[in-house]
Amino acid sequence: MNFEQLQKQIDFIHEIDKIKYIQRRTRLFNSDRTENDAEHSWHLALMAIVLSEHSDQKIDLLKVVKMLLIHDLVEIDAGDVFLYDTVVNHTNTEAELAAARRIFGLLPSEQANELISVWEEFEAGETAESKFARAMDRMEPLLQNRSNSGGTWKEFNVQYDKVVEKKSVIKHGSQVLWSYAKKLIDQSVEDGILQK
Amino acid sequence: MNFEQLQKQIDFIHEIDKIKYIQRRTRLFNSDRTENDAEHSWHLALMAIVLSEHSDQKIDLLKVVKMLLIHDLVEIDAGDVFLYDTVVNHTNTEAELAAARRIFGLLPSEQANELISVWEEFEAGETAESKFARAMDRMEPLLQNRSNSGGTWKEFNVQYDKVVEKKSVIKHGSQVLWSYAKKLIDQSVEDGILQK
Repeated sequence: MNFEQLQKQIDFIHEIDKIKYIQRRTRLFNSDRTENDAEHSWHLALMAIVLSEHSDQKIDLLKVVKMLLIHDLVEIDAGDVFLYDTVVNHTNTEAELAAARRIFGLLPSEQANELISVWEEFEAGETAESKFARAMDRMEPLLQNRSNSGGTWKEFNVQYDKVVEKKSVIKHGSQVLWSYAKKLIDQSVEDGILQK
Repeated sequence: MNFEQLQKQIDFIHEIDKIKYIQRRTRLFNSDRTENDAEHSWHLALMAIVLSEHSDQKIDLLKVVKMLLIHDLVEIDAGDVFLYDTVVNHTNTEAELAAARRIFGLLPSEQANELISVWEEFEAGETAESKFARAMDRMEPLLQNRSNSGGTWKEFNVQYDKVVEKKSVIKHGSQVLWSYAKKLIDQSVEDGILQK
């Protein structure tokens, strides 16, 4: 039996293990330990499954889940960029594109092209699937900061207006989730864990 | 707006964070750090996406991914059972079923019932989807042990026959992956990292 195609897939599966070492700034719910990209991606994918009914538009849920499982793989080469970073802008950088080409490029070419395309769709945020996936990506750290008495908001002195600006991405995917998120943000000010 | 339904989903999303603390015996690829259940579940779900063409039967890939993302959630209450444990048998125990009912039971009832059913289907291993999902669950630690000079095989003195017996679950999902896995196991004996 010729395992040439399969071996490329196994090489990819091996390579992506590295995402488990990439630490985010946000911390686990009720914990001092920071979350890594693999844990984060797992959580977002399952959130999408559980919350899919709240998408404003009809979505291909498998595509959303694919997006969320792979969306941070480029950070193996390009590193994590903190949402509230004031120097580095987290838009689709050259470094991330090069990373996508190298990492997905380990796969057989047809599969590599498909996943690069799914990743680019997520980054562009223009389709129903990417809007909902991006809503998940903004929702999880909001829940974590709520659960951690302010978490990265307090740690990095992030103010209410900035949080509302960054989290408003949620409303492109789901009006219901945005209403809920806005309520949590306002509640955080009342609770004294977010400065206005 | 009434968030009653949504709040149950958020409570579930909060609760399942605990899986990030559940350590497995196997270690990351080329590492001394053990893997946790969230990282493991993320990896299996993405493996299923990448390897789906090798399933012997036609599969609903979204269902396979759901299975893999949730398959270890019961361990939040019931704990991880090591594949090669000689005392505790990893079959669908009472403790796991109670855990499934409690954890999925946080969700709105229709969704809870769906995910309990998906988890039971995975455990039973009789459908095309569960066979392929279970193949992923056996494949990842095999790749990890290969990559870690024997890993848990060496650490817990597991012999060739036991590995072949446990890993043969792969063949119910994919003849191609089983041929590949069998080759890796045989190669491991030749390389001196698995005892025959």
